[in-house]
Parts: sequence; structure tokens; C-alpha cells
Amino acid sequence: MKRILSTAVTTSRRQSPRQCPRITNHARILPRNLHSTPLRRQQGVKDVSSNPQMSFPCLDALETRTSNLLKNPDVRKFSGPEPSYTAGPHQTFTSTEPLRLDWGGILPTYNIAYETWGTLNPTASNAILLHTGLSASSHAHSTDLNPSPGWWEKFIGPGLSLDTNKYHIICTNVIGGCYGSTGPSSLDPSGKHYATSFPILTVEDMVRAQFRLLDHLGIEKLYASVGSSMGGMQSLAAGVLFPERVGRVVSISGCARSHPYSIAMRFVQRQVLMSDPNWSRGHYYTSIPPHIGMKLAREIATVTYRSGPEWEQRFSRHRADPTKPPALCPDFKIETYLDHAGEKWCLEYDANSLLYISKAMDLFDLSESVRREAITRRGSVSQGSTSCTLTLPEEAYEDKDTPAEPASSSRHPPQDLVAGLAPLKEHKVLVVGIASDILFPSWQQREIVDALRLSGNTSTKHVELGEDVSLFGHDTFLLDVVNVGGVVGEFLE
Amino acid sequence: MKRILSTAVTTSRRQSPRQCPRITNHARILPRNLHSTPLRRQQGVKDVSSNPQMSFPCLDALETRTSNLLKNPDVRKFSGPEPSYTAGPHQTFTSTEPLRLDWGGILPTYNIAYETWGTLNPTASNAILLHTGLSASSHAHSTDLNPSPGWWEKFIGPGLSLDTNKYHIICTNVIGGCYGSTGPSSLDPSGKHYATSFPILTVEDMVRAQFRLLDHLGIEKLYASVGSSMGGMQSLAAGVLFPERVGRVVSISGCARSHPYSIAMRFVQRQVLMSDPNWSRGHYYTSIPPHIGMKLAREIATVTYRSGPEWEQRFSRHRADPTKPPALCPDFKIETYLDHAGEKWCLEYDANSLLYISKAMDLFDLSESVRREAITRRGSVSQGSTSCTLTLPEEAYEDKDTPAEPASSSRHPPQDLVAGLAPLKEHKVLVVGIASDILFPSWQQREIVDALRLSGNTSTKHVELGEDVSLFGHDTFLLDVVNVGGVVGEFLE
Repeated sequence: MKRILSTAVTTSRRQSPRQCPRITNHARILPRNLHSTPLRRQQGVKDVSSNPQMSFPCLDALETRTSNLLKNPDVRKFSGPEPSYTAGPHQTFTSTEPLRLDWGGILPTYNIAYETWGTLNPTASNAILLHTGLSASSHAHSTDLNPSPGWWEKFIGPGLSLDTNKYHIICTNVIGGCYGSTGPSSLDPSGKHYATSFPILTVEDMVRAQFRLLDHLGIEKLYASVGSSMGGMQSLAAGVLFPERVGRVVSISGCARSHPYSIAMRFVQRQVLMSDPNWSRGHYYTSIPPHIGMKLAREIATVTYRSGPEWEQRFSRHRADPTKPPALCPDFKIETYLDHAGEKWCLEYDANSLLYISKAMDLFDLSESVRREAITRRGSVSQGSTSCTLTLPEEAYEDKDTPAEPASSSRHPPQDLVAGLAPLKEHKVLVVGIASDILFPSWQQREIVDALRLSGNTSTKHVELGEDVSLFGHDTFLLDVVNVGGVVGEFLE
Repeated sequence: MKRILSTAVTTSRRQSPRQCPRITNHARILPRNLHSTPLRRQQGVKDVSSNPQMSFPCLDALETRTSNLLKNPDVRKFSGPEPSYTAGPHQTFTSTEPLRLDWGGILPTYNIAYETWGTLNPTASNAILLHTGLSASSHAHSTDLNPSPGWWEKFIGPGLSLDTNKYHIICTNVIGGCYGSTGPSSLDPSGKHYATSFPILTVEDMVRAQFRLLDHLGIEKLYASVGSSMGGMQSLAAGVLFPERVGRVVSISGCARSHPYSIAMRFVQRQVLMSDPNWSRGHYYTSIPPHIGMKLAREIATVTYRSGPEWEQRFSRHRADPTKPPALCPDFKIETYLDHAGEKWCLEYDANSLLYISKAMDLFDLSESVRREAITRRGSVSQGSTSCTLTLPEEAYEDKDTPAEPASSSRHPPQDLVAGLAPLKEHKVLVVGIASDILFPSWQQREIVDALRLSGNTSTKHVELGEDVSLFGHDTFLLDVVNVGGVVGEFLE
């Protein structure tokens, strides 16, 4: 087959400025950078294409943001000791005792940002620790200091699910986060940002850090530990790690161990983010943040937060503007929805916090053997170990046409997990699952319940909301005051 | 809160060369580029970090590939008239009559790469047109010219599902592809690569292009049209567009219209790819291809090709090397699996082909009104239209806390779709779905069947393979010779 070297300098078809002034002008004022059409394409004048050149307003917008971030010194706000990300005023607890982490790292000191609602009673017996999902701050509800609505605004208050007439509610920003608690964007005592020398973190580490706050507050025993999503993991972990210090446990849309599909969905988000050149292997705090990678990661995450059937009802196959031809930039309404979710998020959260907390979720496994190993390793780095951490496996995965034999033909939770949940066998536990959740599918909540019951627990309540009740998927816990909130309120009584 | 400017020049903790010679050396020989740790971090000598700096061998590997691609002229093979991507020797049909496309574009001429197996009988009545999924070539089975195994090797042959003792099987590379058929990597008659001036394509365009090949081959009527995944879309479209020229229709793991979840999953793949700076808005043919974006897109796609339960059995929570600490680079076995899938693919397929064909799948909708509008628009660009195409909607999506009311409370297919499938009402149609498929969920195949039956078809056979039969999800059609192949073979008899 013949090969002809294409040496002609050509150009794309010029769009009529009269018909598309906005786009044409927009393209003209943009800086030429990585995403732009190579300059040589702008130089020709002959128009011989069979079809018009596509335009990419969504890439134009990204370039504009990059350009603005580079120009505007106000957004270069990553060099101070406090994270720039904030959910507003909060209280801060500082622990000066080093926290030795499950995978061998150490935090010499750390802060925990927290907020509270309701009044702690004289015996300090009415406290509820509310755990957050991956990206939430301590601002679960408005406060005097910060009147803006919190992420569980409608679930907390007098007479509501978390009844502030009865309970003293405490919500923290997890360590690893960026809303006031110590995380990768914080300064190491050496004076530089932790960035990717922040140690690998586990959900259990987050919980142990929280319990030092409880010590500080004089709370020996929680009335209840409550959480959804990653908070549902933390809530179980709190009971398992500190069974004598937790009364009741509520775990909504959580799990006792992450499964491969969830790991896969979080892995691709992390890889996309880490591939943004602005991520700079985590060292972006004196430059611009990886806003493109963050936007893309959030778009992927958003796919897992709701459900196909909900989108079917809400968006169907509607295009944002049916009068226009199809585009590779957002076009269908579902695409503009994802784009919007990414836009809202891309500068609101610290990229390294996302990576570390997302990884902590993958590592979550309440099996007894996992906990035993963690205790052995804890704080080993600080004890002089020079082991080479955090590297790629040397052997690549070998693909096979056929899968291995099923590891187990039964659907029973493994004995290791049953033993891991045994510390909760005397506790009242509420487990809530949502049938339309694809990120924490409802069989994962059934696994918690089965493991608890096999461990001897007779006080576990299991509620699964069917697709007739909620099509909101994983996000149901944020939205359904009646069905999620109601069952939580009843359980706490 | 006080703010301290971090001005100290520090360095990451140095890893011991004795313990990690591979990684340390590797890092030293790498070119410093976009993904590297900023140079200033290399200059300090004081080691005061509380924890070791993470290493990122997966990013090292990407940088090495970028560097090799830039250095090695052999891989700069994108400037010739033939795509560099190839599945091996094949036959080529060239249509010199312009193809006017559904969304107004035009292909002045086009090639279709194809391969055949079995013998066409004297009345040309035993031909089966086999349609491919998104990324497959015409090489469905080994040939004398190309003895390497094809993508449906075990399904085609004497006595097999597509029985070469009886049938003459034809498989093509779709237009828009990069395995010999005209696509974005091809040269426009002007002499430059189409790139992103390739016109927006539909599945129906691909089918109309294929039928010109059938004209050329002297095949007036197909014995059957057979396909899986996107091929299942094409197979239905062939029957709908050319009802007199198609005998039987087989559609496996396909749909009659794409739904928002599938669109969402493909959209994020495209956005990730388009955000790779090497994509250069599609004009990368004289530079290096966007191998990082392609790898990431394939990793996301791979999440949708199998199923959570299969991964549960196959990988569980196993880590690739449990003796090592956790990593942000591939770590769990499921992650190395995804990484491997991306690696295999990232230089094997043309990025622009992926974008155009993926978009064509999103646009697929066999509703009658959609077909009517396409006929009106067809080829309009070539008729002197200067309309400004392919732009972003001007209004961004507005998020709402609560969804719109359900569009329809019934699960019946809309009348528009029933009318769209009416041309098939006299045909024998086989529809196969897989319960574990999350990309083309089995309710989509039930929608095809319901619409066909409502249109008056009484010869539709519907087979749904339960999770007890296959946990392979969407990939089942490539793997299950017994259950998929068997039912196809029977239906064709």
C-alpha cells in the first residue's frame, strides 16, 4: 500500500463570524497552550476540507481557567499554613501527641476541625459522633458562627432525625481532609506541605484521631456513632475499635469491606487526576491545582452517585439544545449534568485529600486479620524503618480468558470478617442500604448484617430501601429525610 | 489564623538505593517533564519530612513512553495516507460516490475494509453480515492472508455458530474506524487528515456504507444480519433501514436506543481523552498520539465491560503484592487488571476513531422521528450550508435537589420507538441479553423485544442469560461460545 507524506500546510475551515461570533471571538482571545490546535494549522489560508472543523468550547473553558489561575495571584493561595479550602468557621482540636498510623506513617501533631449542635448533658452521655462521606466538611448543619446550610441540614435539629433537643451532635472533618483537619495540604512540622509525603491513611486512623477529640471533650462513651457512605465505614469502625466507648451504631450506605467494583471506580478517578500535569506528583501547592484532573475525577464519581433509572426519568435522551448538531463537548443533558458537577468541585477540594481519602476507602476491610496486622505495623516508619514504601507491584497483571474458579460458592461472609465484627455483637446496630446504589450496592449492607448476626449479634436492624422508594442511588442518604432520616430517628430513640 | 509563607527549600526523604535500586535508578534516568516533581524539590539536602515521599512508578512509565514516542521516528507513523493501525491484510472496497451522512456531513469517497469466510452460493442468498463492537476490526476470524486469531474465532467455522459450511460470512471495519476503513485518521481528498473535521457519524451511516459494499459484492439480500454490542445496534439498524435486504436479525447485548447511564460512561471516557494535551484537538497525526488519555479511557471502559460479581470472584480484595505497602499506582489486583487493559490498548487504536464511534453509539436511537429528521438533514453541509456546527450548549445545566417528575410511569417503550422498529415486524429477530451486563443492561434488550412485539412482530426470540450462566457482563458475547454461540447457531438454522 502506497504511503504519501502529507506535507501540505492546511487550515481548518473558517467559521463565519457572523453566524458564530461568540465562539470565533472566544477562540481568538485564548492563549495558545497545550490543548490548542497546533499553530501550523492557523497559518494556512486554503480551505479544502470536506467538512467543517469541530470547535471545542469545553476545552476553551478549561484553558481560560488555567490562564486565569496562572494570572490571578489570589488563587495562588496554597503556600500558607492553613488550607485555603474551607467550609467556614469551626472549632479546632490540636493533638500534640503523635498519631501512629496503621500503615506505618506518623502525624507528629494534628488538628481536627469540628462543629457541634445541641447541648452535652452533665453526664456527657448524650453525644452522637456523626461521620462524613469522602469530601464533606464538619459543617453538617448551620451554626451561629457559620449560618450557611450544612450537608445534613434537614436531618439535624429539634425533633429531627438527630434531635438536638436530646443529643449533642459532633461532626468532624476527617484527618486527610482539607477543611481544617490535618491533611496533605497541611504543613509538616518541617515547614513544607505534606503533599505526597503524607502517610497512607486508613478509615481506622481517622476514627482513632476522632476519639482523641472525644477525650479532649470529656466524652467517655458515645450515645451513638452515625455515618453514611465512608461515614458508614467509620461508624462501624468506631464500634469495632472502641466497643466500650460506643453505644449504638448506625451505618448507612456503607460496607464492612470495599469490593473490587468500588475500588475500580475510585482507581480510575485517581489515575485521571494523577495524570493531570498540574498535579505534579502532588506538589502543586505553590503553583496551580490540577483543576482539569479534579473536574474529570468528579465527573466519573458522579456517574456512581446516582442511578441509571433516575437519569432515565430525569434526563432520558434529551439533548441540552436539540437545535444544534451533536458535539463532543457536553451535548446530552446527562453530559451537561456531569460537566456541571465537575465544575462545581474542581477548585473546592484539595486533590491530594481526594487521593488519600479515596485510597483509605479502598483499603477498608474490617476483617480481624487486617486489624491485627495494622496493630503490628502501626507507626513503624517513625521507629527508624527505611523500607521503600508505596511502589508499583513488579509483576504486571496477566490477563486470562477465563476467570479463576469462584473463591467461594457461598454468599456467606468469610469467617475473618465475622470475627472482625465480633466486638459489636452486643451493640444495637442499624444498617441501611439502598437498592439503586451502584457504588455501595445493597448486598454490601446485607454482608454487614449477615456478619453481625453470625458473630452472635441479635440487635441488628436492617433496612433496605427498594427502587420504588428511592432511585437516587448512593446519594439517597443526602436527600431522603423521610425514609433515611425517619428510620435513623426511630432507631436512636 | 496566622499565615506563614513556606520558603524553606526542602527535599523528599531519599530512599535507600540498597533497598530500592530499581526505583531510585529509574527515577534518575527519567526526563524531567510535566509529571515530574518540581525541580526545586530536588535541590535541597535537608531531610525533615515526617514520612517518606511516595514514588509513582506508573507515572514514570507513562513519561518513559512519551519520551520514547518522541525519540523514535518509527512511531511517528501518522503522516501517511494509510492508518498505521492495522489488524493485518484484508480486502478493500472503495466507494467513489459521496456518502451523505445523517448529521449533514459528507464523505466524498470512502474505503471499507472487509474479510470473508465460507463461500457465497450461486444465488448469493447465504450471506451473513457480521457487525463489530466499537473497537474491533474486520478480522473476526483467521484467514489465509492473516492467520492470527480473530475476535470471534471460536464462533465462526465449519459446524460452528456462524457455520462456514452453509454461510458466507462478511465482516467489515466500520467507517469512522482505523483498521482500513475511512475514518478520522484517513486523508480527506484535500490531502490532510480528517482529524476533527471528520463529520459526525451515526450507526445508521455505518450501515448505509456497508450496504454499498453488499451492492458491490452482488448481494441483494442478506440471509442474516448479526452483531453484538455496537454490532447489535448496527444489526437492528440494518433491518430497519433495509428491511427488504435483510432476512433474519440477531442483536446481542445491544439496544434500540442508548440510555443516559451508557452515555455518561462513554462521555467521561471521551472527556478524559480530550483532556490529554497530546490529543491537540484531534490534530496529533504528525506528533505523538494521546497515549495517556487513551489508556485512561480504556481503563474506564473496562470497568463497564465485566461485572462486579465476576471481579469479586476473580480478584476479591487481593493486592498484587501484599508484602508491599499500599500505593496510589496500581496496587489491588483489580487495579493491575485495569492498568493492563489500558496498556494493551493505548497505542493500538486511533483516538479520534474512538471519539467518533463512541459518540455515534450515544446518538443511536431507532425511534421513527429520529430517522425522519436524519433523512431531512442528510448531506446538508455539502449543499452549501455554513451553519456553525458542533458547539457547546450555551446554557449550563442547572442542578436541582429533586428530580423532575417521572417522564412516564410505565415501562412500555414509547410509541415513537415502536413505530421505528415497525419495518422489522415481519422479520425473524433474535435478541440476546446478559443479566450481569451493566453497559447494555438487560432491560434494554427487553425494550427491543417489547417494542418489536408491540409493532406486531410475532417472530421475536428473546434469550436472557442469568447471573448463574454468565458473570462476564458485557464481554459475555466475546467469551461464551456455548450459551451465546449456541443460541445464535440454532436461530440461524
